[in-house]
Amino acid sequence: MTSSVATGAGARDLDRALDAMVAALGHDAVLTAPAELLEFRDPYTYRESDEFDASAVVMPTSTEQVQAVVRIANEHRVPLWTFSQGRNNTYGGPAPRQRGSVLVNLRQMNRILEIDTELAYAVVEPGVRWFDLNDALVEQGADLWTSIPDLGWGSIIGNSLEYGIGYSPYGDHARNLCGLEVVLADGTLLRTGMGAMPGNRAWHTYPHSYGPSFAGLFQQSNYGIVTSAGWGLLPRPEVYSACWARFSGYEALGQVVDALRGLLLDRTIQNTPMFNRGFDLDENGNGVFTPDGDGWFARFALYGREDQVEAQYRAVEATVGRIPGVRLDRRTFDGRDLAGPANHDERVQRGIPDMDLLDPTMLPYGENTAHLDFSPVGPARGSAVVATEKLVRSLYAGAGLSYVNGLWLTARTALHISTTFFDPRDEEQTRSVYANYGRMVGELAATGYAPYRTNLQHMDLVADQFSFGDHAQRRLSETLKNALDPNGILAPGKSGIWPADRASL
Amino acid sequence: MTSSVATGAGARDLDRALDAMVAALGHDAVLTAPAELLEFRDPYTYRESDEFDASAVVMPTSTEQVQAVVRIANEHRVPLWTFSQGRNNTYGGPAPRQRGSVLVNLRQMNRILEIDTELAYAVVEPGVRWFDLNDALVEQGADLWTSIPDLGWGSIIGNSLEYGIGYSPYGDHARNLCGLEVVLADGTLLRTGMGAMPGNRAWHTYPHSYGPSFAGLFQQSNYGIVTSAGWGLLPRPEVYSACWARFSGYEALGQVVDALRGLLLDRTIQNTPMFNRGFDLDENGNGVFTPDGDGWFARFALYGREDQVEAQYRAVEATVGRIPGVRLDRRTFDGRDLAGPANHDERVQRGIPDMDLLDPTMLPYGENTAHLDFSPVGPARGSAVVATEKLVRSLYAGAGLSYVNGLWLTARTALHISTTFFDPRDEEQTRSVYANYGRMVGELAATGYAPYRTNLQHMDLVADQFSFGDHAQRRLSETLKNALDPNGILAPGKSGIWPADRASL
Repeated sequence: MTSSVATGAGARDLDRALDAMVAALGHDAVLTAPAELLEFRDPYTYRESDEFDASAVVMPTSTEQVQAVVRIANEHRVPLWTFSQGRNNTYGGPAPRQRGSVLVNLRQMNRILEIDTELAYAVVEPGVRWFDLNDALVEQGADLWTSIPDLGWGSIIGNSLEYGIGYSPYGDHARNLCGLEVVLADGTLLRTGMGAMPGNRAWHTYPHSYGPSFAGLFQQSNYGIVTSAGWGLLPRPEVYSACWARFSGYEALGQVVDALRGLLLDRTIQNTPMFNRGFDLDENGNGVFTPDGDGWFARFALYGREDQVEAQYRAVEATVGRIPGVRLDRRTFDGRDLAGPANHDERVQRGIPDMDLLDPTMLPYGENTAHLDFSPVGPARGSAVVATEKLVRSLYAGAGLSYVNGLWLTARTALHISTTFFDPRDEEQTRSVYANYGRMVGELAATGYAPYRTNLQHMDLVADQFSFGDHAQRRLSETLKNALDPNGILAPGKSGIWPADRASL
Repeated sequence: MTSSVATGAGARDLDRALDAMVAALGHDAVLTAPAELLEFRDPYTYRESDEFDASAVVMPTSTEQVQAVVRIANEHRVPLWTFSQGRNNTYGGPAPRQRGSVLVNLRQMNRILEIDTELAYAVVEPGVRWFDLNDALVEQGADLWTSIPDLGWGSIIGNSLEYGIGYSPYGDHARNLCGLEVVLADGTLLRTGMGAMPGNRAWHTYPHSYGPSFAGLFQQSNYGIVTSAGWGLLPRPEVYSACWARFSGYEALGQVVDALRGLLLDRTIQNTPMFNRGFDLDENGNGVFTPDGDGWFARFALYGREDQVEAQYRAVEATVGRIPGVRLDRRTFDGRDLAGPANHDERVQRGIPDMDLLDPTMLPYGENTAHLDFSPVGPARGSAVVATEKLVRSLYAGAGLSYVNGLWLTARTALHISTTFFDPRDEEQTRSVYANYGRMVGELAATGYAPYRTNLQHMDLVADQFSFGDHAQRRLSETLKNALDPNGILAPGKSGIWPADRASL
């Protein structure tokens, strides 16, 4: 087979590799036609750019087929780039860092391998979406639900490997993985943790290992391809309260952050509070986008038996509720009602996925709306949050860009996630949005903040910020890369980690 | 300097290395006299054995000195073995796996580098003990406490790197570390997570990284020497209830495990319930050892505002309390009372360390009592726990050994920790206890269980159990070992990970 996009290694190696992949996986499992590749481009890069174009897409349906793909890629020195669903469009969607990479599309590996209703976990393949797991739990009538992020179409494994956040007590999704199966660059099949023992019964229950814990190596990295993972589930609560704190201005913001941090630290609030500036609630409790306003709302949730939730809410009233100018609201639901509540905010904190936030009628350029998210991480301290919000605001203002501002709070950390909307058909606008991102990385680094993940365009720049000890982290990353993947076939450039022989890619 | 214990590499290299360490760290920082080395032996191995004897002890006081030690060890190819306090005697205490290793004793690196009272974390060096941190928190009058294990003399970092367990909501101590500073085998100083960026303000608050998470590499491993770490602290609760469930027999055991698992999964109970068989409570609430009895007690705790704790306890009564034959008790305290309660069970769940469990008057051989802990991990399912308890009981009975039985429960995992007491002056008894351990590893592996940590004597045997994929985990461990530590100087044999050139050690 022949692709119109060449790798650096030259089209001849690529053609042979694709022929071998067809022989191993079947003709329908390999795509090379330009029209077929279109949906796998970085959807938010400048439309005319081919910098992040793949040469082909291969679609394994099993771990064995992933092993075959990896062995073929090694033989022909063809770079691969893996995605699970590839739906996080602000971070490149399914597109590769290295032009001409062969995409390993795991959407066909979409089996839920196990649901243990007693121990409350599932084992899923990378193609399993939030929608799929929720459907399976509802269908089983299981008394269990799952943590989810805002959009239901993404991969559980993909989101979690990128340190994605959800809105449940298991909202730190990376920590909610337990027991990975991973294909290494040489085709070796590794099971992490207790799974390294054949038949071990704690593989998906015990989060650690005998000896070093290797699971972290496969987060946001290019050291292996995760082909299944354990995933913790939650018992449906008797009572669930969706709560909102509404307020205006920076002074209240700092106070609300400090008060919520206290409630997170003492575990009164067990999910991830999410703040938005420029939103308000309509009479049905739906968030309404009012970008020019200075109003904030913080959304969070309480779970438990009725008297537990009432006691938790009294603690919220006694702290957040006493801040001048803060209005508290909540709506309380039967947590075991499978249909769940009517609006997105209420659903997402109970694990019921939807696609509401991508409603094109809400977006400035309709179907053509792209967005670039900037996500620096800092301490969950009111004064620091306010200073960072002001800095980010001034940087967008200085670039003449409007943006939507969000804040995700854990007990000790604040994730400042701001979003600029743009039209990727407009080259000038697109370049200006990406250039501003680069400037913001530098400005935030000067105050001790770095993004926790980034887009293809800025992976190297963000990696450059982690320069402690003469770039000790990068040197370690590269030592491991060269030891584990000497031909550099797995996702070269991911998170700024390149193989030694980058020139031949 | 000259040691009476040779390394495999020969005494000449060792002598030169020790001279260089004296030159770098000072004469008082290097110990070689046999009398001085005595306290660093494996205290529970057969007293006449020299299999795990060190050749010398070096005591750095700073990260720079650790870097110097590592560089000298590389130059002279001398194996090192690091301990923080070296107090976990059942796992070898401070002693090395490889005879003749130079011990890197980190007890002198005992500074608390930072306590952030708002974000509720400390930054500690490896020599900082549970006692030290508690003292510092009390002295500061900080409204914070720390998770602790049963004995207060151990190192926070050492315990956590070995996946130690505490009795607070942060009882999974490995997960409570956030942001490590690590000296790699080549002397490189690495900061994990956000700390890889100079001046990053989320180093000790954000648990992940940009790119792969490397912190897990330094757990129970020989890839680096951790020289400081962030450590999460807890706000002192308004109210703290120490709770006990007492019952007899296997049927109740299974039901209590299932009921407590439900309360752990829904986060009503947020600490680590610990079960003991053969204990009972006296009229003061102290555990009394009654090894021949079939009575169990499970200890756990509740924390929060008064109405939260009352609601939690009602949930405990409605579940655990309804199991036939189960007696529930609790004692409730002001969680902000720095003096704390009077007995060990009540203190340890509130972070107040002591040494009660090593009271020699309670132990069968007095000051000479050794113990060997066997700690397989399994699912937190009542039926599985009962089957495993019966199997372990039959194995000890078959070997004619008495033992004390414990069970540590998390939401999905049960740690079965049993202890045999013996007198290490008695060679025959000691050999029989260790031989039985080896048999139990094999018998438990056949049912899908492995220990989560082990003693020096069985590190290779336990590693052998993790054979999935033609020992894929070991091959990965060794690939990383050879890439990161080509001379094999760091803790050869730790967790069954040996360098390529083992023969020259």
